[in-house]
Amino acid sequence: MIAQGLIARKRDGGRITAEEWGVFARGVASGEIADYQAAALLMAVYLNGLDRTETAGLMDAMLQSGDRLDLASLGVPRIDKHSTGGVGDKVSILLAPIIASLGVAVPMMSGRGLGHTGGTLDKLEAIPGFRTDLSLDEARRQVERLGCALIGQTGEIAPADRKLYALRNATATVESIPLIAASIMSKKLAEGLTGLVLDVKRGSGAFLPELERGLELSRTMIELGTDRGCPVTVLVTAMDRPLGRACGNALEIEESIMGLRGEGPDDLMAVTYALGAEMLLLAGVASSRDDAVHLQQEAVASGKAAAKLQEIIEAQGGNPGVVDDPATLPQAALAHVVEAAREGVIAAVEPRGIGVGVVAMRGGRTRVTDAIDPASGYVITARPGDRVERGTPLATVYASDEESLRAGTSALLHAIRISDTMEATPLPLISHRVTSEGVETLASMQ
Amino acid sequence: MIAQGLIARKRDGGRITAEEWGVFARGVASGEIADYQAAALLMAVYLNGLDRTETAGLMDAMLQSGDRLDLASLGVPRIDKHSTGGVGDKVSILLAPIIASLGVAVPMMSGRGLGHTGGTLDKLEAIPGFRTDLSLDEARRQVERLGCALIGQTGEIAPADRKLYALRNATATVESIPLIAASIMSKKLAEGLTGLVLDVKRGSGAFLPELERGLELSRTMIELGTDRGCPVTVLVTAMDRPLGRACGNALEIEESIMGLRGEGPDDLMAVTYALGAEMLLLAGVASSRDDAVHLQQEAVASGKAAAKLQEIIEAQGGNPGVVDDPATLPQAALAHVVEAAREGVIAAVEPRGIGVGVVAMRGGRTRVTDAIDPASGYVITARPGDRVERGTPLATVYASDEESLRAGTSALLHAIRISDTMEATPLPLISHRVTSEGVETLASMQ
Repeated sequence: MIAQGLIARKRDGGRITAEEWGVFARGVASGEIADYQAAALLMAVYLNGLDRTETAGLMDAMLQSGDRLDLASLGVPRIDKHSTGGVGDKVSILLAPIIASLGVAVPMMSGRGLGHTGGTLDKLEAIPGFRTDLSLDEARRQVERLGCALIGQTGEIAPADRKLYALRNATATVESIPLIAASIMSKKLAEGLTGLVLDVKRGSGAFLPELERGLELSRTMIELGTDRGCPVTVLVTAMDRPLGRACGNALEIEESIMGLRGEGPDDLMAVTYALGAEMLLLAGVASSRDDAVHLQQEAVASGKAAAKLQEIIEAQGGNPGVVDDPATLPQAALAHVVEAAREGVIAAVEPRGIGVGVVAMRGGRTRVTDAIDPASGYVITARPGDRVERGTPLATVYASDEESLRAGTSALLHAIRISDTMEATPLPLISHRVTSEGVETLASMQ
Repeated sequence: MIAQGLIARKRDGGRITAEEWGVFARGVASGEIADYQAAALLMAVYLNGLDRTETAGLMDAMLQSGDRLDLASLGVPRIDKHSTGGVGDKVSILLAPIIASLGVAVPMMSGRGLGHTGGTLDKLEAIPGFRTDLSLDEARRQVERLGCALIGQTGEIAPADRKLYALRNATATVESIPLIAASIMSKKLAEGLTGLVLDVKRGSGAFLPELERGLELSRTMIELGTDRGCPVTVLVTAMDRPLGRACGNALEIEESIMGLRGEGPDDLMAVTYALGAEMLLLAGVASSRDDAVHLQQEAVASGKAAAKLQEIIEAQGGNPGVVDDPATLPQAALAHVVEAAREGVIAAVEPRGIGVGVVAMRGGRTRVTDAIDPASGYVITARPGDRVERGTPLATVYASDEESLRAGTSALLHAIRISDTMEATPLPLISHRVTSEGVETLASMQ
């Protein structure tokens, strides 16, 4: 009866109190509230919205449905970075060791691939032996010892969110700003952070392609964090093309390692350092953005950051040798270089199509239970705006069998379009910075 | 993936085709579409609506998800009466034998109690031995032989509707006009009718209390029926007070039997004859409303209608002796006469409160699996507008144990209010008649 009452209230545009969200979240976690009741409420929320207080109430309720990392005794700042999801986005794998090597604790809880986007957990598990299913206790001890743990959402953390998240996927209620914000922040607050940097993607490959919606999400997340003593800084970055060159799990680990050796692609390193700078500023260990970027470049140049990644991999059961020799990562049996079929300009490298291609090669999932092929994916050298001749190599497709290779190649050929002119001006790589003080435009369209 | 696509489309205000409703209904019936996905779609439909074509598509899809009664070979008109649900509404139990005794086939499929309202099936099962779970084949043979069968929605009829109906109850998506209309009409069309009379309740005890919503439902049902060759006539009747005096399963069977003997309360008989007249007009066996009422009165006065009820009860395994001796119905162990605590006027006999009181005495259900106490209930003699002295008897409460008696008495005392003046003018008993030609006002408020 309680569930029906809450559903009816939200259905009619009414408000749900913090206490009621508590009853709801506990009921969802325990199974007392049926999945179909939760689904009906999620749709009512999607269509009728939540105000600021309600969103915070839902977030708190999901947070309190489980345990949290207690890192207060650590005595150092605890900062995480979260992205709204993209294609080729391996920034977390670079930033976690870079920032941890600079004395800031990074208790990083990541997710799996979702739809066309990749997931940090899937990428990390391409490292032979790497375990992401640490208990909260293991994670806490590792953060104390190494300054970083790279984990998944355990059953202990926000179990109500875990269940609602799965339901949202199945019921077309993912793209709701209050639901997205409450879900992310319930998990981030469970990490016991002192600050959070958020990478809000925009463009055709983002879950919220339009800038206005991305800014609305940013403001919502900033409000939620600020209200709970966890300041949030947002950078809005481009996802109208993949980030970096590698798309696919082991290939992205390799590119991340190259980045930690100072050999990463420019766009990837620029986004990494910009987000890392915000982390260091929130942590109070850098006095200016320039200083913060410089500290990171030094951590890379000195090998400190790569060494930190090795320590983390070793601590989590993986083979640390991959950092010195990325060839020990899973390798695809087949590789096929795709060349330009005509001369012209690269009009688009459509990230959604690229992501779907990776999934088609089993580098992602269509169901939660699907097994991942870690070796498959793309290395894409063509960038929007490049001039090409007929026969210019555009990308290499990596796959484990002929069928995957064909599917992946076909997806790639649809996603990379060559024309006489560009389809659209590429979005600025990093366009806006949002804090509780407001929105700052860093770069605008030409 | 199909489910998510349909949910997303309706969420965004788009339309769902007849073919897609077919896929949805089959998926719901087979379990391929999960309950939570159906629930999300139901909420999107609740909030964004369905147009006429979509509503018909959903109705057809639910109808086609199961079997139907094939009575075409009978060669007589087949007419049913359906009510949107009320308190004390035992009209079906009178009308089925009256109309069947006049040569019209009445293949009547009824439901169980829902919320505060009673259900014809629960009432019939108060007759010792009475079976409502006939198979379609048994029902068809009984209609051929006796002109009437009183059955429940078997698993064979519109299984998709059955599942969606249960989900709607659990997810606060009951009061949606297209969902109500498609649900009722999918079952009624499965009865193979040549016409349908619909009793749309209005007032505080109705599921759709406002006249405007009742008329909207009427128009929707008329459209659905007309489009499928089953003309529908609607009467709008009062549910701002219970219908008749008895509320509770065995008590309502007793009052129905009294009605078939010519001793029913005036309001109950007036509604019965008015709805029955519309059935006879649709069947073409009466030439005018007066003629149709006269035919029914004769069927009662001659004992033909009571005899028909006896035949039906016997055919369905019940004790036909209850018609001659209602004392053989289940009797409550306890009876308590409630008297007026002050002098004044009966300001309200609130049907929702009365219905809740019956449920509190286990005369109805809060869960589908609850067992019913058939003997409990009320006989209410107080009518809105009556002048009473302190000590005037208002009602008798019947219950099986002291706890139920207390709960039932308390609910009754809240529902019957005595004041110096009426709270509101009672609604006209029968206020509107709606057909495909339009709305006719039969009685308006003073």
